[in-house]
Amino acid sequence: MSSALRGTALKQFQSHYGPRIEQALDQLLPPAGEAPQNLHAAMRYALFPGGKRLRPVLALVGCAAAGGDPARALIAAAGIECLHTYSLVHDDLPCMDDDALRRGRPTCHMVYGEATALLVGDALLTLAFEAAATAGLMAVRELAIASGSRGMVGGQMADLEAEGKPRTGGLEQVQWIHDRKTGALITGSLFVGASAALGLGEELPPAFAAKLRRYGDCLGRAFQIADDCLDLTGTAQELGKNPNADLDHDKLTWPSVVGLERSLAMARELAEEAASLAPQIVHAAQEWRGATLHALDGIVALLQDLAFAAVERRS
Amino acid sequence: MSSALRGTALKQFQSHYGPRIEQALDQLLPPAGEAPQNLHAAMRYALFPGGKRLRPVLALVGCAAAGGDPARALIAAAGIECLHTYSLVHDDLPCMDDDALRRGRPTCHMVYGEATALLVGDALLTLAFEAAATAGLMAVRELAIASGSRGMVGGQMADLEAEGKPRTGGLEQVQWIHDRKTGALITGSLFVGASAALGLGEELPPAFAAKLRRYGDCLGRAFQIADDCLDLTGTAQELGKNPNADLDHDKLTWPSVVGLERSLAMARELAEEAASLAPQIVHAAQEWRGATLHALDGIVALLQDLAFAAVERRS
Repeated sequence: MSSALRGTALKQFQSHYGPRIEQALDQLLPPAGEAPQNLHAAMRYALFPGGKRLRPVLALVGCAAAGGDPARALIAAAGIECLHTYSLVHDDLPCMDDDALRRGRPTCHMVYGEATALLVGDALLTLAFEAAATAGLMAVRELAIASGSRGMVGGQMADLEAEGKPRTGGLEQVQWIHDRKTGALITGSLFVGASAALGLGEELPPAFAAKLRRYGDCLGRAFQIADDCLDLTGTAQELGKNPNADLDHDKLTWPSVVGLERSLAMARELAEEAASLAPQIVHAAQEWRGATLHALDGIVALLQDLAFAAVERRS
Repeated sequence: MSSALRGTALKQFQSHYGPRIEQALDQLLPPAGEAPQNLHAAMRYALFPGGKRLRPVLALVGCAAAGGDPARALIAAAGIECLHTYSLVHDDLPCMDDDALRRGRPTCHMVYGEATALLVGDALLTLAFEAAATAGLMAVRELAIASGSRGMVGGQMADLEAEGKPRTGGLEQVQWIHDRKTGALITGSLFVGASAALGLGEELPPAFAAKLRRYGDCLGRAFQIADDCLDLTGTAQELGKNPNADLDHDKLTWPSVVGLERSLAMARELAEEAASLAPQIVHAAQEWRGATLHALDGIVALLQDLAFAAVERRS
């Protein structure tokens, strides 16, 4: 792909599906006026206005890559954003990272109090599974495994435990944490979307699933390394949260182990590996669905744009 | 049913399935030695030794009432207990009820700290949905609706908001809270179990579902009113937690609105209504599954025992 065209496929996809993701979220969440009003208003406060909505986009792309109409995955995609948001709300609580700023605004517990923020997180996590069920049983399983004690929550626990400790675990330890804390849900989002493309009782062919999983794992690692680097190089305005938060908490990050320069190079390598997998994913989908499937047009460029966007972003 | 026989069906069912529920929980939870070890050890601390395991029993009974083998619902039943336990762990946190004692032992955050207890709850809630998926999509939907912002979490929010306020909402308000805080998951447990009895793409017939739902709603209300009363009349040893906790928090309870005597009478009436629905549930199941289905033998007595046990317990 020529670098002049890089990003075009993703921009087109986002301008088409971005508003639909917001609509699906609005549809999924109970109205702010429904009792208990404080809870429902606080759930909406945590979700709107949103960030990049990366995970819902990945779910829609996962559905398209598996030969499905992305519209079938919209509610489940909105559910993944609820799950991601629950993790931020709980992470920001005083007993966790104790953060006051998120997406450029006071965090949920700063506005609604700790008890409500705790329940907001619980309710959003629960709603995520109600939404995932619209994409079938595989979606529920993938989401639960990606976000539970062997996935995201396990990563958060290990991340907390590593705070302020000597860096004896090296790259292996930080990768273990990253893969769970961030990577698992990135890969999981692709699979929740792919699940929506399946018929009742149908399963993903192993060749397609293996390529998609490897792509997600590279993307997830690249994304989290870039995140660690942005925490050092970004401004509060760009990030919508306080920079150097990792330093302040003495977090175990990629740059804290190998330095900023090498971290940026490794993130770039992972993005390139992900990009190189894109044609292979589409090839596997064509073998499965039939080579002429129109829906697969443009998916290679989309998967590649996502890979590079993960490391080229400023926030 | 003669009162001499009352309780026999439930006792037999519990002695047969009680150990299997413990086994399913042990199988569902990651080993305590698996990383992150503190998280997995704390999840097990919160779950073992357990309480009555009422909700898993209800799930197995729901499966049997829908003509299924209760063994098919065991993992999903264990998942419901994880969900119930998450709600207790989060409820006990300092920003919520700030309780130090649960099931006769220090609460999870007293032993493992607040951050870990928060993540224990998150992980148990997530695991509940992984487990529910083994009973099919209806199980996931029912569990999510019962426990989300329109169910249990919504009830907890309203319960917190009502603390220390004048009792202006009367019975209607306390019933609104009870139905969500406790009732929704009691009914939900029956439906998660019934889901496990369904084949792929099969649905519960509306006549059966309506009777089962009404039974669950009566049982749930009876159970929560009895709980409110026990908080006033039980000892710490019987309850495994500090009595008068509701008074200390100035909670909106059934006795605080209509008094203890009338509360006990209303709980009894609800238990009797639930018991009277038992033959109708089994009749509807027979119409659906065929009148001779052997698995339905004994279900009437079991449903009736459960109804009376909800109000006749001492803990």
